[in-house]
Amino acid sequence: MERVSVNLELPQWLWEMTEGKDIFLPEIEDRMKFTIELSSLNVKYRTGGPFGAAVFESETGQLAGAGVNMVVTGGSSVFHAEMTAIMFAQKNTRKFELSNGGNSYDLFASTEPCAMCFGAMPWSGIKRLFCAAKGEDAERIGFDEGPKLPDWEEHLRKRGIEVYTSILRNEATAVLNAYKNTGGVIYNSDFSLK
Amino acid sequence: MERVSVNLELPQWLWEMTEGKDIFLPEIEDRMKFTIELSSLNVKYRTGGPFGAAVFESETGQLAGAGVNMVVTGGSSVFHAEMTAIMFAQKNTRKFELSNGGNSYDLFASTEPCAMCFGAMPWSGIKRLFCAAKGEDAERIGFDEGPKLPDWEEHLRKRGIEVYTSILRNEATAVLNAYKNTGGVIYNSDFSLK
Repeated sequence: MERVSVNLELPQWLWEMTEGKDIFLPEIEDRMKFTIELSSLNVKYRTGGPFGAAVFESETGQLAGAGVNMVVTGGSSVFHAEMTAIMFAQKNTRKFELSNGGNSYDLFASTEPCAMCFGAMPWSGIKRLFCAAKGEDAERIGFDEGPKLPDWEEHLRKRGIEVYTSILRNEATAVLNAYKNTGGVIYNSDFSLK
Repeated sequence: MERVSVNLELPQWLWEMTEGKDIFLPEIEDRMKFTIELSSLNVKYRTGGPFGAAVFESETGQLAGAGVNMVVTGGSSVFHAEMTAIMFAQKNTRKFELSNGGNSYDLFASTEPCAMCFGAMPWSGIKRLFCAAKGEDAERIGFDEGPKLPDWEEHLRKRGIEVYTSILRNEATAVLNAYKNTGGVIYNSDFSLK
């Protein structure tokens, strides 16, 4: 084996939006607009699939970490937007469990989580999850949500994570549809059960 | 925000085992022994939780990527052994979907996957999953498997992934118990439902 490390780097355009800035978005709707904008720019700059995610400190709305889907460009099936945002937020806050012993954190996702990202939520330390497009909106353009518990929202709530869905759903779904219409890659589609 | 990247580096002892070597383990049992050894050494060298995982090319048994639990030492809740092994195997093979258009790959795990790692399997491109300790063996020492589908094995099979469990279960469980007995950190235990 060759000695390598796995490096996850965000796209250049994302750094241009955030580097050197303290971003505070007190309103929930503004946090979701920012997140959907990430999904849209990821399509525009062809840096990955049509998905964005962001972690904010719940009370102040300070951005703690942003992420986009980088499966193809980053070279790993793990690099979904939510996973990327969680890893960067944990790096920035220096905490592997975000809300442990301190501020409380929210995860915003431009589409509801797939089975993997859902399973990552309880370990991440987020206290609230906000989603825009429904899983079915992503499935309609050919993406696959994976083998998820049918009552996944309830399972997160039982573990102390509040879940809010369909926040600006139309705006997020428009990005998914635009991706499909411009011929974006739908990877992993061979796993689809449809 | 400060410009950072997320870097995942394997422990030094793991490189000493693998660097510059082409490791071929044709027998299933030998692949699992190697994987359990990773979990054991991760405890011995205090580089993370008592979990190991490895990806092998199915036919030849060539090691494609190894991983251990690095949640605390790597600083992210995402860094479970299976996720780490998948990310390194994808890096080494330069494929975000391992078995796509080429050889077939197996994932070996010293303990059955948690909800996140389970959800990661269909996207990873592995074709076979081999597990040693049962989820309940990890739960008995205080770890939490997360909100997993009760018939998770069947869901993977439906997606074309063969699943084999309880391969050298006793050997892997002994590592879990030794970790507990030496006072190893059981992180995320506040999420336990028990």
